[in-house]
Amino acid sequence: MIDITGTYTDQYEIAMGQAYFLSGRKDQQGVYDYFFRKSPFGGGYAVFAGLPDLLKALENLRFDAQDLEFLKAQGFHADYLAYLKSFRFTGSIYAPPEGELVFPTAPVLRVEGPLIEGQMIETLLLNILNFQSLIATKASRMRLVAGEGMLIDFGLRRAQGLGGYHASRAAMVGGFDATSNSRAARDYHLPASGTMAHAYVQCHDEELAAFRSFAQARPDDCVLLVDTYDTLHSGVPNAIMVAREMEKRGQRLKAIRLDSGDLAYLAKKSRAMLNEAGLPYVKIAASNQLDEYVIRSLKQQGAPIDVFGVGTALVTGQPDAALDGVYKLAHADGRPVIKLSENVSKITLPDRKQVWRAVDAQGLFAGADAVSLDDEENIARMHHAFTPHQSFALAGFRLEPQLHRVMTSGRTAYDPPSLPQTARYCRERLALLPEEYKRFENPHIYKVGISSRLKTLRDGLIEQFRK
Amino acid sequence: MIDITGTYTDQYEIAMGQAYFLSGRKDQQGVYDYFFRKSPFGGGYAVFAGLPDLLKALENLRFDAQDLEFLKAQGFHADYLAYLKSFRFTGSIYAPPEGELVFPTAPVLRVEGPLIEGQMIETLLLNILNFQSLIATKASRMRLVAGEGMLIDFGLRRAQGLGGYHASRAAMVGGFDATSNSRAARDYHLPASGTMAHAYVQCHDEELAAFRSFAQARPDDCVLLVDTYDTLHSGVPNAIMVAREMEKRGQRLKAIRLDSGDLAYLAKKSRAMLNEAGLPYVKIAASNQLDEYVIRSLKQQGAPIDVFGVGTALVTGQPDAALDGVYKLAHADGRPVIKLSENVSKITLPDRKQVWRAVDAQGLFAGADAVSLDDEENIARMHHAFTPHQSFALAGFRLEPQLHRVMTSGRTAYDPPSLPQTARYCRERLALLPEEYKRFENPHIYKVGISSRLKTLRDGLIEQFRK
Repeated sequence: MIDITGTYTDQYEIAMGQAYFLSGRKDQQGVYDYFFRKSPFGGGYAVFAGLPDLLKALENLRFDAQDLEFLKAQGFHADYLAYLKSFRFTGSIYAPPEGELVFPTAPVLRVEGPLIEGQMIETLLLNILNFQSLIATKASRMRLVAGEGMLIDFGLRRAQGLGGYHASRAAMVGGFDATSNSRAARDYHLPASGTMAHAYVQCHDEELAAFRSFAQARPDDCVLLVDTYDTLHSGVPNAIMVAREMEKRGQRLKAIRLDSGDLAYLAKKSRAMLNEAGLPYVKIAASNQLDEYVIRSLKQQGAPIDVFGVGTALVTGQPDAALDGVYKLAHADGRPVIKLSENVSKITLPDRKQVWRAVDAQGLFAGADAVSLDDEENIARMHHAFTPHQSFALAGFRLEPQLHRVMTSGRTAYDPPSLPQTARYCRERLALLPEEYKRFENPHIYKVGISSRLKTLRDGLIEQFRK
Repeated sequence: MIDITGTYTDQYEIAMGQAYFLSGRKDQQGVYDYFFRKSPFGGGYAVFAGLPDLLKALENLRFDAQDLEFLKAQGFHADYLAYLKSFRFTGSIYAPPEGELVFPTAPVLRVEGPLIEGQMIETLLLNILNFQSLIATKASRMRLVAGEGMLIDFGLRRAQGLGGYHASRAAMVGGFDATSNSRAARDYHLPASGTMAHAYVQCHDEELAAFRSFAQARPDDCVLLVDTYDTLHSGVPNAIMVAREMEKRGQRLKAIRLDSGDLAYLAKKSRAMLNEAGLPYVKIAASNQLDEYVIRSLKQQGAPIDVFGVGTALVTGQPDAALDGVYKLAHADGRPVIKLSENVSKITLPDRKQVWRAVDAQGLFAGADAVSLDDEENIARMHHAFTPHQSFALAGFRLEPQLHRVMTSGRTAYDPPSLPQTARYCRERLALLPEEYKRFENPHIYKVGISSRLKTLRDGLIEQFRK
């Protein structure tokens, strides 16, 4: 239906490409930064996700025949179209491992290569990283409050069209256990999970008959939806009856699912009924407009829910729906560059940079990332980017570099971990972030500062342009 | 990257399919309704969109070799896999024209065919229609307030991954004029639009040099971004200089673009400067976190903005991010069926149904859609679905049937209009909806009622199950 080709971008990238090309700037080199300005969901961090999909898309990026025909009809220059025909991304990319925690204003990823190529991939890069990072972050927030509960992505039907495909993947990065999305499960080797809908119950004369036939058809993975008519007076009693019949056949009912009503109340009542019937192993799954706040509330109420099925809020990243990641030029044709703004917080950081994470003696994140020029080391102190006289001493902390080369000359240059490894990495990193940065309400602000040398360079460029 | 195959669905559809198949219900017939419960964005209507993409996906729906291999590994039964191998959607679909205005609780679309096929397509149908309808609705709200202003979709970089592809299409249904999304423009023949980014200005030693080279490269479609350093003291004066140079070459600068700062203030100042320079034809485009409320405010302030570039809020449908459309079984194996709920508003409407729109003597929508059984005509009165003694007389109104056959035996059975025709239809229908239903704040509630016969049937089924 849609494969990523050269036109998977904003038209202005292609228009600028032509201007670079025709003005003889084709071979000039550039450095671009990807970063975001605000953590999503009012939280204190974001989870970086989408890197393998980005690298794969870049390796395979081509303008195909349809692209070239379209661009010709749009009036692009013949010489430029000939260039696009053999276009390849040949640059390098520096990034943290997927699953890393990242913070506002610090570069998350750096692209180096021909100016024109870096420009052409802007939209594609933003499209992939902004979305997967948004969803991985949302998933991680649910993971933080779900305790031992299993988290299953049920979102495809409410996903933003084809966006559901990568949403299911990103949910796993952030800590989900399985997905209902068969296609994503197929392609990314995710654990797939599926139960039954109300329609299955409705098309039988009686709920009990529906449960029986479903148990026959799927004895090893049988989850019965108990709220089609009356959860406590029909659904759960019928499920208990079928569970007992299954026991006689040496089978076990896996779970019941609640999909409406007061989930805390119904879970407690259902648990008691199942236990009383000698079925303590039958789990309780719950769904219906869940998000991290509802899950937290259910846990606080002691609702005996074993499995949370989360749809809309997960796969669309409600209510934010987008991470505000941007992509800015920092170095061009041998010199550092800057973008000014009437809003000082939107002034960019020039030059090729590295990011250093301060880690304390216990190995925990100290709440400080320092942005430096790429050739700096042992940064002793970082400065607030815009507030004078605010600085933070880094002495005594171990400084972890965050940006590592993952692509060289357009080819993936590291050994990508498996998705479960990435999810584990994300979980481990979250464990290193102190609680106050992870709370939902007014989280502590993780500091991102700049080195003295970077500050001096930037301030000089601002002065130069203000004159 | 992703084509729609049989596994583009929730795993439970496939699990239920197996249960239907193994329990001998493969050839039983079913009728399913697609509807939504709440208009998005706190508004008074939704725009129905996505129909041609849905029909195309259904016509081409196949389980491919990878699907079957995956499902085999998931433990599905060999006989069922053999059935899936030759699976085709062979049902019929009834729907309004794309671009129609639709209202909560009334069936928007009806699927008839084998129970198992109707079940298998649920997720795919919801995934396509929920999203495109959400975005078309969002776009229409911007169209309502933008006056003569041109609306351009700039959203791909913030879109939900591949979802951006269909977002750009749906935006056109709702009234957008063009898109920056080259790939969507290529495939759907949309007007493509592209200007320049800050990076292009930054990589030149001076802004003026950047503007000059861009004007050289793109004289026919030149829009200059004027806020890289200082909009009024650098950007606009430089753009004026280049516009004059272009005039000497017999060319015309198309527009300047404002992307930061106070857009109303800057647009007024820029307009005055351009006019004073004898360049009244140079248009002003504005972007930066626009949505329908900001556009309305800019218009109210008299900001002389000719072109609005809208990104995130458009393509993600912020803040809702999803339309809550559902898909429910209404008829199975020869009998009407119902789904009960502790929340009465979630009780479904049984049987095969038609929807009638009341149109008054002036040809305007009367604010009432009546849901009837499919074989009813001339409905004299409609009843509130759940509040007793509330009814609405339909005498004196013309009743327009809303659901028309668009697919028969799995093949498209109507002549799909072009996208511009669909957009025109949407605009015409919006013109027939009185203002009070279109206002953003507390819109008047469009009534959806049910016929006496449908009410009697439903109430009887409720009683039957309550016993």
